Amino acid sequence: MQINTNQSEHKDNLLLSLISRYHQVRQDSLDICAPLEKEDYTIQTCSEVSPPKWHLAHTTWFFESFILNHYQPDYKVYHPQFDYLFNSYYETVGKPFPRAQRGLLSRPTVEEVLQYRQYVDKAITELLEHTVNKTDSKLEFLLALGLNHEQQHQELLYTDIKHIFAFNPLRPVYKPRSYPSIQPPERYSWLDIKAGTYNIGNEQNTFAYDNEGPRHRVLLDDFSIANRPVNNQEYLEFIEDDGYKNPALWLADGWKHMNNSQCHHPLYWEKKNDEWWYMTLSGLKPVDLSAPVTHVSFYEADAYARWCGHRLPSEAEWEIAADAYPANRGNYRETGLLQPIARPEAPDFFGNVWEWTQSPYQSYPGFKPLQGSIGEYNGKFMCNQMVLRGGSCVSPVEHLRHSYRNFFYPHERWQFTGIRLAKD
Amino acid sequence: MQINTNQSEHKDNLLLSLISRYHQVRQDSLDICAPLEKEDYTIQTCSEVSPPKWHLAHTTWFFESFILNHYQPDYKVYHPQFDYLFNSYYETVGKPFPRAQRGLLSRPTVEEVLQYRQYVDKAITELLEHTVNKTDSKLEFLLALGLNHEQQHQELLYTDIKHIFAFNPLRPVYKPRSYPSIQPPERYSWLDIKAGTYNIGNEQNTFAYDNEGPRHRVLLDDFSIANRPVNNQEYLEFIEDDGYKNPALWLADGWKHMNNSQCHHPLYWEKKNDEWWYMTLSGLKPVDLSAPVTHVSFYEADAYARWCGHRLPSEAEWEIAADAYPANRGNYRETGLLQPIARPEAPDFFGNVWEWTQSPYQSYPGFKPLQGSIGEYNGKFMCNQMVLRGGSCVSPVEHLRHSYRNFFYPHERWQFTGIRLAKD
Amino acid sequence: MQINTNQSEHKDNLLLSLISRYHQVRQDSLDICAPLEKEDYTIQTCSEVSPPKWHLAHTTWFFESFILNHYQPDYKVYHPQFDYLFNSYYETVGKPFPRAQRGLLSRPTVEEVLQYRQYVDKAITELLEHTVNKTDSKLEFLLALGLNHEQQHQELLYTDIKHIFAFNPLRPVYKPRSYPSIQPPERYSWLDIKAGTYNIGNEQNTFAYDNEGPRHRVLLDDFSIANRPVNNQEYLEFIEDDGYKNPALWLADGWKHMNNSQCHHPLYWEKKNDEWWYMTLSGLKPVDLSAPVTHVSFYEADAYARWCGHRLPSEAEWEIAADAYPANRGNYRETGLLQPIARPEAPDFFGNVWEWTQSPYQSYPGFKPLQGSIGEYNGKFMCNQMVLRGGSCVSPVEHLRHSYRNFFYPHERWQFTGIRLAKD
Amino acid sequence: MQINTNQSEHKDNLLLSLISRYHQVRQDSLDICAPLEKEDYTIQTCSEVSPPKWHLAHTTWFFESFILNHYQPDYKVYHPQFDYLFNSYYETVGKPFPRAQRGLLSRPTVEEVLQYRQYVDKAITELLEHTVNKTDSKLEFLLALGLNHEQQHQELLYTDIKHIFAFNPLRPVYKPRSYPSIQPPERYSWLDIKAGTYNIGNEQNTFAYDNEGPRHRVLLDDFSIANRPVNNQEYLEFIEDDGYKNPALWLADGWKHMNNSQCHHPLYWEKKNDEWWYMTLSGLKPVDLSAPVTHVSFYEADAYARWCGHRLPSEAEWEIAADAYPANRGNYRETGLLQPIARPEAPDFFGNVWEWTQSPYQSYPGFKPLQGSIGEYNGKFMCNQMVLRGGSCVSPVEHLRHSYRNFFYPHERWQFTGIRLAKD
Repeated sequence: MQINTNQSEHKDNLLLSLISRYHQVRQDSLDICAPLEKEDYTIQTCSEVSPPKWHLAHTTWFFESFILNHYQPDYKVYHPQFDYLFNSYYETVGKPFPRAQRGLLSRPTVEEVLQYRQYVDKAITELLEHTVNKTDSKLEFLLALGLNHEQQHQELLYTDIKHIFAFNPLRPVYKPRSYPSIQPPERYSWLDIKAGTYNIGNEQNTFAYDNEGPRHRVLLDDFSIANRPVNNQEYLEFIEDDGYKNPALWLADGWKHMNNSQCHHPLYWEKKNDEWWYMTLSGLKPVDLSAPVTHVSFYEADAYARWCGHRLPSEAEWEIAADAYPANRGNYRETGLLQPIARPEAPDFFGNVWEWTQSPYQSYPGFKPLQGSIGEYNGKFMCNQMVLRGGSCVSPVEHLRHSYRNFFYPHERWQFTGIRLAKD
Repeated sequence: MQINTNQSEHKDNLLLSLISRYHQVRQDSLDICAPLEKEDYTIQTCSEVSPPKWHLAHTTWFFESFILNHYQPDYKVYHPQFDYLFNSYYETVGKPFPRAQRGLLSRPTVEEVLQYRQYVDKAITELLEHTVNKTDSKLEFLLALGLNHEQQHQELLYTDIKHIFAFNPLRPVYKPRSYPSIQPPERYSWLDIKAGTYNIGNEQNTFAYDNEGPRHRVLLDDFSIANRPVNNQEYLEFIEDDGYKNPALWLADGWKHMNNSQCHHPLYWEKKNDEWWYMTLSGLKPVDLSAPVTHVSFYEADAYARWCGHRLPSEAEWEIAADAYPANRGNYRETGLLQPIARPEAPDFFGNVWEWTQSPYQSYPGFKPLQGSIGEYNGKFMCNQMVLRGGSCVSPVEHLRHSYRNFFYPHERWQFTGIRLAKD
Repeated sequence: MQINTNQSEHKDNLLLSLISRYHQVRQDSLDICAPLEKEDYTIQTCSEVSPPKWHLAHTTWFFESFILNHYQPDYKVYHPQFDYLFNSYYETVGKPFPRAQRGLLSRPTVEEVLQYRQYVDKAITELLEHTVNKTDSKLEFLLALGLNHEQQHQELLYTDIKHIFAFNPLRPVYKPRSYPSIQPPERYSWLDIKAGTYNIGNEQNTFAYDNEGPRHRVLLDDFSIANRPVNNQEYLEFIEDDGYKNPALWLADGWKHMNNSQCHHPLYWEKKNDEWWYMTLSGLKPVDLSAPVTHVSFYEADAYARWCGHRLPSEAEWEIAADAYPANRGNYRETGLLQPIARPEAPDFFGNVWEWTQSPYQSYPGFKPLQGSIGEYNGKFMCNQMVLRGGSCVSPVEHLRHSYRNFFYPHERWQFTGIRLAKD
Repeated sequence: MQINTNQSEHKDNLLLSLISRYHQVRQDSLDICAPLEKEDYTIQTCSEVSPPKWHLAHTTWFFESFILNHYQPDYKVYHPQFDYLFNSYYETVGKPFPRAQRGLLSRPTVEEVLQYRQYVDKAITELLEHTVNKTDSKLEFLLALGLNHEQQHQELLYTDIKHIFAFNPLRPVYKPRSYPSIQPPERYSWLDIKAGTYNIGNEQNTFAYDNEGPRHRVLLDDFSIANRPVNNQEYLEFIEDDGYKNPALWLADGWKHMNNSQCHHPLYWEKKNDEWWYMTLSGLKPVDLSAPVTHVSFYEADAYARWCGHRLPSEAEWEIAADAYPANRGNYRETGLLQPIARPEAPDFFGNVWEWTQSPYQSYPGFKPLQGSIGEYNGKFMCNQMVLRGGSCVSPVEHLRHSYRNFFYPHERWQFTGIRLAKD
């Protein structure tokens, strides 16, 4: 999680491009929210979801708290209580406002949050203009971190808006569109990888999160991995074979969770007149059988794989297999579809859906978290969560890397999560 | 709950005045919401509180569901799902949307709800204009009921907005104002009433709720009742005498509730630098010692009375004692204070605070609920709740009567509830 | 709740008979537990139920805490922590052990509890022998109170053992027996009572609880009351008419409770091969259609009455109607049936089932609780509960009186509760 | 999880020794329960704990369900409902009785459970006597599995009895004894291990659980590992340095759990007059500062290690380091201490406390669960739990192996769990 700062001659350009990138990323957040009504900004439909207004404010607080408060000598915080209201989980900064109550705050209003954003954007711009001739790799890193952080929240904006809209019986449409005509799905095929000692993890010559390194050796046996994620047609066979009712297929915690929450299909699916429909960011649509299945938990992914007689890949297997393919092609948010679709360009490792691996989220050997409160960014979550790889249809393309590690609890389903099979 | 319809000669005037009153009451709801931001309309800070937007829509649905659907032949409902979304608790009409999730709906927007109101207002006006020459006492009654219903929700709008604002650490101000200078409180005195057989309950020559009748005889022993509600100075003595820590003063359920919820002072009170402050609709203010204590539960009212060596009045005692005084004078919402204050005009039975009685909310002898779904209005709540009398600083003056029976669960505190003492 | 102590000449006999009665009542508790295995004594199947062992210890603690500690000069408590473990709810005595955790204590063992009983019995006997020549009406009262208290717990022993056994899939039998052959039920008839001013409540010349007095006047309108409780045949018609699915019949809190707890028949009923069975203290038996329905909540009683077009009686109506019939005849525990049965001897007001009235449990006018901690016995429960009258098939006959007021929360069903109808 | 069956010539002896071992292990369970009172056998003080009676019955059911029902042709199950009552979690066998309600069953009594054990023991003995001349490696394996399973439950019997006794304010003593005199603790030292490719996991020539294999290669960097577990003196420094109040030391889920459950010291610790005491199977004792700290969660172990600037070992590191030392020496249950103690014989990897590793419990590469319902034994728990190594003071010595993998949820503390440090 360091950026290489040996190229000091390109300093000016780097900072100018940082300013430009800063404004672009900040504007992206506003663009994502553009279709919303004021009322949509304050809702929190479950504790994992945050109100869109909160995302806009929290990402701003991140720049204020970790950059302006340290680097801008006379910086005056915008509001004395925003440090409480918009701190997400940085316990060493101060006690954060309770997460499950974010949807109970009507104030500050959206308008006030937008003013807060402008105030901080102005201060950041001034800070950058004044440090443009100095070398400060830590500041550059923090700025890059703040922008990557904001991109993560942009992805959450999409998934949280989807949850908020799907909860509403009126089924609002975020962005009207029709999806491409539905093609009959082709069977996935296997990529075979030889046993050996491989390297995974990030070299960290360019920006990467701390949790992606250090780069290190792993031992792998022979394995095969599917050339694309499981699609809805394939998943439907599991449903129709009563996969949700067969305890032999499920992890103990998964079986308990599924029964307690009465889940018998992916999130957002519903049956109308014997046909499956699902909620999309374009409203309620018939399930596209050719598209990758999404909004499944790790438990469902694992049970599906066991039903097939296969398994999920480890994150090392995934990374080695994906290494041969470019990370910057795929159904990312830039396609504007905001929904997974069948892609002929297999092998297809990036975009569409975050793929559950069988790897618990843990530190790599020799991992050191960042110093200070920013060290709470990733490391403290290395327990009880599973690694997902590959990005989704609402991830920005420039945000992804081969080494990128996403992580969620095994029961969570509101992200665009999917399934890729592997076998020995 | 019937209106006397013998005066047919004044039919035209009556209906014209109904139309005028209809528009006035409907406008009042909008006026109450005028200071709100769009974001304030969707919040539900606890399950008893409803989002202001919901109140605006539900009161409209009431007219649609109980009047337009029955009296307007070709009436087309505004939206097919509003019957689900805005039904409060009329189980015989259909399954209502879950109460605790009212704050999870961003749509319909405020703007859409206002359009819904206009649509229904237009239809009601047309209906009234077409029936102006016909006698239809049931329609007149339902209209009166709908308007009284809306007035009840206007009171809830105030108390719910207060709860929403008080929950927010930014402590927003609904309506800025300073309160009259604080006077030293005078001791309350006792009104003595002789034993005897009295009549209570409503004659129902004019509009009244079904639960206020039939008028019937009650036997009372000699009793005395305080000439005004308990004030904050008096209540503070109870707090400072560790009244909240002495189990001998509390009902068993009250002691359990207080300990579980860690309540040691009225709702909205907080101590800053050793001084008591409380949240008002005008923001955080020092506690006015001369004003009636408010936002106390029945349990607190009962414990306070026991601490004094007195008791709460029964609702019959309250009504007999109040009968001598006019119901249309008092600190109602029309004073604009929206907060209880000391009043020299004792005996003072009306306005300021709803006064907990020791009477469980039950049917009067011979009570018959209204026919049909509208019968769910009052009767089905006659269990587990306590009767309160007298109206509050956010009740409209024309809404109150000597026979008016309000009712809440004994632990509830978000209404403007207070304490009047009685003794044998 | 005072006993008349003017007859001092009969002092000796009175105390001797008290000693004898003391030993009888104390022995009764042991006799009730005789069929139990050691393992049955420690179980608590829900928070309302207490382990049988706890009842045996708590009733003993009552004598120790309220009599021996005050009257026996050198009394040494049996165990310093029993005051904590076996205090039920006397908060002014000290913090009681949490009620819901009574079933988590294996120690003291049953054997140790029996030794505790012997220790206290010996001390009480000695105390009485030494005070036999002195007049101490308060001690006599406390002794009578302790014995009545123990009788109440004897009833709870039966109902709690029933709950413990019914919970167990093995369906253990407490006392094997077959019930009398089932007779076809006769229709109930109505007793008509004239309007007037009546007196209810206890004169308190002999032992009665404080909550039964003072005797006072009540005003009643004309009413009729059924000559016997509703039987299973009659209740089954309500079930089969989908009474449990019709919201128009239910109080709001009842409807909510029934739906949350998925109750669609009385407690302990189950359907096997299209026939209704229920658990009794003699094991699983076919439902006796002629017997009074039992194990219903107030909500069910109220809904059933509404379905009939009738209502429940008030406790004053019940007492006035029952006054004409002896309280010491009925299917009490002395019949050994331990289950309600049809009785030809109508009107039948006593024994069989506790009859829900429509009266919330409240103080009578002029009620004063006992002084000191013993004042917590009854008064502090006068909120949120409903009055029941008449005793049950597991009440001791000598425990009941016309003025006897039992009280439970409206949702509770594990007592032998039933339904008597009334109408205007 | 297979046993080598090539040595058929020793068949007779093997089976005779199996019968002997069967009776020994079965008797051990009874011996562990010998100090209990009947009342102790039915209690369940939290959902993780099972009543001792349940352990005795469930281990018996295991033999009945997985051996007798399949191998004994005319076997008649002891009781038709025991398959429901004593199935722990084998969903493919049938729906198990709810785990959290095991403590609500008074029947079958202890006596009846002992009869059940005798019935099954007799049937198993007969089965073995009749198959003694045949080769049936699967039966032998299942028998070995049943006995190892029973040994696991023997360990649970100790920890569950401890929990049951510690919950009771009377603090019963399971086995009175005084512990050896307390020695001043010596500082732990480091064992240094070189980077390299190592083999871990079980060869499975002799009995091992399926989760211990297959044996496979792992890559390790240079690391050091402490020669003994952390002791109470060392852990107390963490407490006194406010380690429980410093969020920077804790995993996010750990911080949340600790705050929700208000844990600020190991389970069973309490402060009396400024001194730390803890509950042991010999009653309440002063904390032995020299002894290994125990009853800590993974979260506490991880936070402690971070406070030291070190980390927990991975399970591979632990196994490689422990490989040099015998698994059959240590403070196991055979010492009779039933409590961890300081041991001079460092390096000390076995007995005393189960040591939390940083490894989530997962399948080894190429893992295949057992066929059939017995496959639910281990594999389905491979999510959300952490691996512990080394055995404890209540494990039987013959039960442990270098490759043995225990697993619990990271918040659990009622086992004898402890901490071993490692560093890069």
